[in-house]
Amino acid sequence: MITTKTSQTRRDCPDIDPRELTLSPKIREECGVFGVYGADNAAATTALGLHALQHRGQEACGIASFDGEKFHTERHLGLVGDAFTGDDPSERLPGHAAIGHNRYSTAGKTVLRNTQPLFADLAAGGFAVAHNGHLTNAFQLREQLVADGAIFQSTSDTEVVVHLVARSKRVQFVNKFIDALRKIDGGFAFVGLTNKELIGARDRQGIRPLIIGKKDDTYMLASETCALDMIDAEVFREVEPGEVVVINESGIEFIRAFPKVPERPCVFEFVYFARPDSIVGGQSVYEVRKKMGQRLAQEVPADVDVIIPVPDSGVPAAIGFAQESGIPFELGIIRNHYVGRTFIQPTQQIRDMGVRLKHSANRKLIEGKRVLLVDDSIVRGTTSTKIVRMIRDAGASEVHFRSASPPIKHPDFYGVDMPNAERLLAANHDLETMNQLLGSESLGFLSIDGLYWAMGIEHRNADFPQFSDHCFTGEYPTALIDFDRKSNGQNPQMSLLVEVA
Amino acid sequence: MITTKTSQTRRDCPDIDPRELTLSPKIREECGVFGVYGADNAAATTALGLHALQHRGQEACGIASFDGEKFHTERHLGLVGDAFTGDDPSERLPGHAAIGHNRYSTAGKTVLRNTQPLFADLAAGGFAVAHNGHLTNAFQLREQLVADGAIFQSTSDTEVVVHLVARSKRVQFVNKFIDALRKIDGGFAFVGLTNKELIGARDRQGIRPLIIGKKDDTYMLASETCALDMIDAEVFREVEPGEVVVINESGIEFIRAFPKVPERPCVFEFVYFARPDSIVGGQSVYEVRKKMGQRLAQEVPADVDVIIPVPDSGVPAAIGFAQESGIPFELGIIRNHYVGRTFIQPTQQIRDMGVRLKHSANRKLIEGKRVLLVDDSIVRGTTSTKIVRMIRDAGASEVHFRSASPPIKHPDFYGVDMPNAERLLAANHDLETMNQLLGSESLGFLSIDGLYWAMGIEHRNADFPQFSDHCFTGEYPTALIDFDRKSNGQNPQMSLLVEVA
Amino acid sequence: MITTKTSQTRRDCPDIDPRELTLSPKIREECGVFGVYGADNAAATTALGLHALQHRGQEACGIASFDGEKFHTERHLGLVGDAFTGDDPSERLPGHAAIGHNRYSTAGKTVLRNTQPLFADLAAGGFAVAHNGHLTNAFQLREQLVADGAIFQSTSDTEVVVHLVARSKRVQFVNKFIDALRKIDGGFAFVGLTNKELIGARDRQGIRPLIIGKKDDTYMLASETCALDMIDAEVFREVEPGEVVVINESGIEFIRAFPKVPERPCVFEFVYFARPDSIVGGQSVYEVRKKMGQRLAQEVPADVDVIIPVPDSGVPAAIGFAQESGIPFELGIIRNHYVGRTFIQPTQQIRDMGVRLKHSANRKLIEGKRVLLVDDSIVRGTTSTKIVRMIRDAGASEVHFRSASPPIKHPDFYGVDMPNAERLLAANHDLETMNQLLGSESLGFLSIDGLYWAMGIEHRNADFPQFSDHCFTGEYPTALIDFDRKSNGQNPQMSLLVEVA
Amino acid sequence: MITTKTSQTRRDCPDIDPRELTLSPKIREECGVFGVYGADNAAATTALGLHALQHRGQEACGIASFDGEKFHTERHLGLVGDAFTGDDPSERLPGHAAIGHNRYSTAGKTVLRNTQPLFADLAAGGFAVAHNGHLTNAFQLREQLVADGAIFQSTSDTEVVVHLVARSKRVQFVNKFIDALRKIDGGFAFVGLTNKELIGARDRQGIRPLIIGKKDDTYMLASETCALDMIDAEVFREVEPGEVVVINESGIEFIRAFPKVPERPCVFEFVYFARPDSIVGGQSVYEVRKKMGQRLAQEVPADVDVIIPVPDSGVPAAIGFAQESGIPFELGIIRNHYVGRTFIQPTQQIRDMGVRLKHSANRKLIEGKRVLLVDDSIVRGTTSTKIVRMIRDAGASEVHFRSASPPIKHPDFYGVDMPNAERLLAANHDLETMNQLLGSESLGFLSIDGLYWAMGIEHRNADFPQFSDHCFTGEYPTALIDFDRKSNGQNPQMSLLVEVA
Repeated sequence: MITTKTSQTRRDCPDIDPRELTLSPKIREECGVFGVYGADNAAATTALGLHALQHRGQEACGIASFDGEKFHTERHLGLVGDAFTGDDPSERLPGHAAIGHNRYSTAGKTVLRNTQPLFADLAAGGFAVAHNGHLTNAFQLREQLVADGAIFQSTSDTEVVVHLVARSKRVQFVNKFIDALRKIDGGFAFVGLTNKELIGARDRQGIRPLIIGKKDDTYMLASETCALDMIDAEVFREVEPGEVVVINESGIEFIRAFPKVPERPCVFEFVYFARPDSIVGGQSVYEVRKKMGQRLAQEVPADVDVIIPVPDSGVPAAIGFAQESGIPFELGIIRNHYVGRTFIQPTQQIRDMGVRLKHSANRKLIEGKRVLLVDDSIVRGTTSTKIVRMIRDAGASEVHFRSASPPIKHPDFYGVDMPNAERLLAANHDLETMNQLLGSESLGFLSIDGLYWAMGIEHRNADFPQFSDHCFTGEYPTALIDFDRKSNGQNPQMSLLVEVA
Repeated sequence: MITTKTSQTRRDCPDIDPRELTLSPKIREECGVFGVYGADNAAATTALGLHALQHRGQEACGIASFDGEKFHTERHLGLVGDAFTGDDPSERLPGHAAIGHNRYSTAGKTVLRNTQPLFADLAAGGFAVAHNGHLTNAFQLREQLVADGAIFQSTSDTEVVVHLVARSKRVQFVNKFIDALRKIDGGFAFVGLTNKELIGARDRQGIRPLIIGKKDDTYMLASETCALDMIDAEVFREVEPGEVVVINESGIEFIRAFPKVPERPCVFEFVYFARPDSIVGGQSVYEVRKKMGQRLAQEVPADVDVIIPVPDSGVPAAIGFAQESGIPFELGIIRNHYVGRTFIQPTQQIRDMGVRLKHSANRKLIEGKRVLLVDDSIVRGTTSTKIVRMIRDAGASEVHFRSASPPIKHPDFYGVDMPNAERLLAANHDLETMNQLLGSESLGFLSIDGLYWAMGIEHRNADFPQFSDHCFTGEYPTALIDFDRKSNGQNPQMSLLVEVA
Repeated sequence: MITTKTSQTRRDCPDIDPRELTLSPKIREECGVFGVYGADNAAATTALGLHALQHRGQEACGIASFDGEKFHTERHLGLVGDAFTGDDPSERLPGHAAIGHNRYSTAGKTVLRNTQPLFADLAAGGFAVAHNGHLTNAFQLREQLVADGAIFQSTSDTEVVVHLVARSKRVQFVNKFIDALRKIDGGFAFVGLTNKELIGARDRQGIRPLIIGKKDDTYMLASETCALDMIDAEVFREVEPGEVVVINESGIEFIRAFPKVPERPCVFEFVYFARPDSIVGGQSVYEVRKKMGQRLAQEVPADVDVIIPVPDSGVPAAIGFAQESGIPFELGIIRNHYVGRTFIQPTQQIRDMGVRLKHSANRKLIEGKRVLLVDDSIVRGTTSTKIVRMIRDAGASEVHFRSASPPIKHPDFYGVDMPNAERLLAANHDLETMNQLLGSESLGFLSIDGLYWAMGIEHRNADFPQFSDHCFTGEYPTALIDFDRKSNGQNPQMSLLVEVA
Repeated sequence: MITTKTSQTRRDCPDIDPRELTLSPKIREECGVFGVYGADNAAATTALGLHALQHRGQEACGIASFDGEKFHTERHLGLVGDAFTGDDPSERLPGHAAIGHNRYSTAGKTVLRNTQPLFADLAAGGFAVAHNGHLTNAFQLREQLVADGAIFQSTSDTEVVVHLVARSKRVQFVNKFIDALRKIDGGFAFVGLTNKELIGARDRQGIRPLIIGKKDDTYMLASETCALDMIDAEVFREVEPGEVVVINESGIEFIRAFPKVPERPCVFEFVYFARPDSIVGGQSVYEVRKKMGQRLAQEVPADVDVIIPVPDSGVPAAIGFAQESGIPFELGIIRNHYVGRTFIQPTQQIRDMGVRLKHSANRKLIEGKRVLLVDDSIVRGTTSTKIVRMIRDAGASEVHFRSASPPIKHPDFYGVDMPNAERLLAANHDLETMNQLLGSESLGFLSIDGLYWAMGIEHRNADFPQFSDHCFTGEYPTALIDFDRKSNGQNPQMSLLVEVA
């Protein structure tokens, strides 16, 4: 796929201030989870793990520990490094077992009651739980539970699972938990903590990731391997799709909660979410991204003087493109690292302002050059438009743009905070129009086959796709119960409470 | 009742630093409640009402409002004046109906989840509730509810009522609420807010107070009349014992939730809790306290030069004693009004330190005089001991002590934070020994009959006492289910969670 | 002096909201000082002393200590109890010598640079200083110093003294300090700390107070004796007017900085500022105030049913009035003690709101009664008007008002924050009009002779008045250089800096 | 310069925890300055400029504005983005002229009184000033000023200039300022604000940089051009060494404060401080750094599989090395961008901990490879040692290290926070030993001639070096008066004050 701009007329996006030549986070993973059993400073270990997973959620974080008798929780808005630095968190959160959570939120001030881990005093004992992903039938289940007298503390879909566990008639805790899992649908990776065990669980098709780590005799659970590297632990293996893992004094036990089905991990872990030094599904994320760039250079080459990555997510693909094409790779966009907490507040206005202050063009390098910008993907296109304009204003003679993933045409329902279809650029425009909107000389996307090739798969299996690639293809791995109910006018009321302080 | 110190030997209380000649709060009411329906600035009105009720609870406060569509809550540790001053709280908490709560807590940092009003999203709609008093079967009910899958957010006994409402099968909300009330026992005054109405309720025997106020067409509920004075409202009438009040657009409706039984309001409202300018059961608290002092002067006179009140609760009784005896009333103890927030933190150490800084003797007035100290009551005796010593160190030739209420020998179970029997001075010592422990020349208490006389009743009815006077007599107005279970070794586990932040 | 209301027409003060039936601080002392040399925990001792002096200034406080090598300072907005509680301040402020300061400020956010003790690194070593009072030629001196290259850190008149010390050519530090004192005029009490000694100084005529205390071998300086009581120290003697005191390792030394002149302490210490348990000029403040009330009952009696003090400053005079007249003393105005920090913010709006929430009438006591209100003084009259109206609205059949000091007709220039003459009620109206403005049945003031009698002096010496009574008489004890310059249009520019944070 | 490790024995640095494989800031510029005259929102413009200069100082920042009548200042610890985001700072800091400052500090809590801009009320009017650099005779001047009665507010050398201005007998303000400049020595760039003008000044030899920007009719001053890019302003020209610039209503005026001498800008602006997109002395910093890498590849080539930059300062040189050598450039070290404020606190312990959490090795990329690490410089060597070990632990078969600047052997005295000579690796060890200490297979440095070549100069002029390169050569451009006095035992006492709060 490639297009060439035929007309010199720049079609203006009137909602973009020409001075806002900046970048903003395009899509956001909703969570990262971590858990450890049998560590001396379980809470400190968890804080380190969460810090390594900070890229998966930056608006709130929390840790729950169990000290043999009591549970302790601490939940904060903001970054792990701000919340859990200073004194050793293990002093406030004692115990040999702990779980933790990083989160993105969508609402403003009311976020704390939704911050995880959630905790409940059940008849079976205390239960803390944290969750990465999204349930596609949470509203339906919540409605049934409330009608039956359940009182929800939060508007989080995670709490549905807690109530299902509380009401399960099974005797053993793990069986109560599996009872609950069998009622929910969607993409999820859970870590749970009871007075006996650390529990992990992954959805039937493995849409969301969960890894088991090991260090000496201690086991951990984490969303990504980079959290294990942080604490110098080894990768043990991934939790299998549909599997429940129980870690306790006796060691580690694996329970199959669901019958085996072909797995379909989310392709966006490779494209955008995972840290480049993580290993996902046995592959180096950095290497996969470089191969996306390499293949992109073959599929949609560009006749330019210099290749500039859109920082920071476009860097590996840009290196791959540069190595394949032989065109020099240069740092044409300088990032200001000193962006304070304020700038990541979730209002659009502040986000825009934050990013306006975040990057600048390296003018001397760009002046008079034909520039190729390489990014990992294009979502709404506002970011790409701003950056094309910034590079042109810095004196580039031509600005070409390449996306190291295919056009995004469909929303996500499994824990990725992506815009509705109406706001997805590629869902509403053809390649030619997108090129005009971006204001670029040419625009190109990686093909679906190119994407699969970079992930090490010869061909996408059209009948049983090897990955959850619904954002590109519209083929969802599960039913979308809540979404369908909503389409039928059943608009769910989560809570009538506006919590001020 | 009077005794005279026969020996000059001062029996020393070794745990009292002789320099800590200070006063501390002896007993603490646990709560004050307020509610209003149909006011333009319901939340601001509620904040003013809570401010007038601040003496009933100083460690936390909260307000919930309903704006016709959503509920808003704001809950804080600390004083109303700190929490709700500055901008008009009605801006953050909009709506024409609101309820509020002042509270004492016993636990340290974990208090916020217990701060009221509590809120729950029920199938029937939103429900906010606040409570003054204590349930005597809350643990038993909680255990049953948790076994049935209920998940509690707090350790407050108030939440038991919320779960009972959520699980009631009655159709109308008020009936669900009455359903719940009929399952609980103890002393209570509830204010509740739904999307249709403001609800008030008082226990069968009226142990805890609840007043209805009116201003133009707007009704309020409050623990004491001083909250109505604050906002220039009239007293409409008291909520009757066993009555439920429903205030909504159609006006005010009274429902009898329990059959009528002889009422037994708590005598401590007169002795200590209520503000002197409040009218309780139709009587001026200030006048009743003066009459306690007047009667005390008759029952246990003192041959002294000057009468000094223990500030501030002993002042009205001291004035009554002085007027009856003709002995001059003087301010012999000066109170430092500028005691910051820190000093009211609920640890014993800080409380002691706070009060050490809070009062001083007016030496010139005391030197060489025979002094009579008048206080409202003696609980643990540590305060009285300190103050006797402070007055003696200031040069008094004799120090006599009078309590304007009878000896306190039994604990409370209806919302008053009073020490266990082991720590009640009068439960463990006879008058002579108490006098020696205090270090006073003479000690005297008001009689039970004197107390009833001051409250306007000729004689206490031994079969059906007109007041809940269990602290003096040991006669409790209700069964003590949780206490008995505890005595039988069924020690309840409220929550396994230690919330750090 | 007495008047009787002849007309029933109530002349309305249109700027008073009829619902604002409340009280506000009428006049404010600007400071309290404390110093100690040779104590193990000098900073903690100073914090306790400042706490006892809190009534002299509540908007900022600070402590400076010297540890034998370095000076340490800590300065805060707000109350001593908030600023210096928690950990022992001696840990942060080590050393055997310390000075401290309480202060009222007039400006808003910029107050911290004016908070004392001030500190300067002089060629002679470090110098910390704190000050109660006001210099009447500070602007003139400041102007000269700045013209000569001095750079001021604050807008405080205290800093003038620091620069004068820095520029003195004398060799010994004490002589430099005396050099500086001889250049200033006004009313002042200084405490200063160098690397060798604690220094105290009082103005020529002793307008502002300063007491020497002693405990074992340790000497202290304090504005009032109540600060010595707090730490169980004895009164040694007052610093004499015009005297400089030097306390160091060798003991205590007295230096006469100015020749002796007849002393004229400020009469307002007795009328309003000093705590009732303090001893000023050898007399009990409580007793003097009672005698003011006693004499008031003789000079302007009232035919009423009940005597009610305006809390809290009117209480001793009301007791004196009641004992002299035989009319019962009652608590007719109840004070809400739980007024948070917010309410003492120095904006007029918040101050009014604060006091609106601060007091209420004890209705049952007042209804149908002829009431006499006794207050210590009347300044602007707004407070008195509000309280007369509050008592009348509570049902009093008559409301009479008595001031236990003469009419205030002239402003102060020696450290008392009093309104300009235009805003002083008695400076602008005769007795009859004042009575009408207050809305009282009758109004009466203590005479000047009565005031002197209460302070133990037979007659005021018209040629050499024994007290600084300028607020009542207009006779100022010093020249008013800055005031005269200002009257001549020389409006001084203190600072061009508006400090935002 | 190149060495090859001959022995396999790794000499261990025992003070390095093998798990601390991390990076820390090696050297720190002390300040960045900005000023603007004639802008509508001068303070907001200044905040944006400071944000772009954040890399020059991250521990404190401040802005002073002049509104035509008054000056306004706001000073904070921490980052510009934290301090000045939210509401438009121009509302708090009104006016058309403003100056600002970013700063590194060395002391802990007492930093605020040293935070700039400093302000003084002089007889000539208000004066705000901020400063990048360091004076080499500040102690000597301070001592003279204090002896003459000057009182310093801070321990900053900048304040010396303020006092010199205050005491100058010249009439015009600019002449007073030049008077002061002529008394000081060292490296400096000043921005000052009076009630009439914005003033800039640069030291005789231009050691510290200062640029003039222009946008429409508005002039700015900034430490680097990236601050002008941020606000879309043009570069007007650099302030010349020894020049004073005055910007006011009449436009811009240039005054030569010192006679012309050959200029010697600090070479470290190119090596480390300046942002890569800045233009310094007419040259692109990014290009100069690439050329350092290119020349390094020629001088000390390496036979490796992959080139990995030490992030982020080593990136341009690594790209230059890779392009010259043809060896692939890869991101082998992943930086965690989410490092909170806590981690940049200036204690060694936290700095180490911060960086431990800040980077990780991209293991899959490194395993089995011969790796070349390229960094901009080596200061103490601790960072380099940690990173070599991190790469080796990640599985590299060989680890080689190259510094894109010559060995640093001498400390700085012109505003760069660099360790003493005892802690500089190259000052104490030969190349072979350094290679062993680092644990690398080979180690190489750029030559001095290579450095000059990269900056566009054929040969270093040994008699009149074109740059201040004293860290490499020991040839200082000025006398070192304070340093020499200190060496002679005259240890200056800056302040006896330890400010606690």
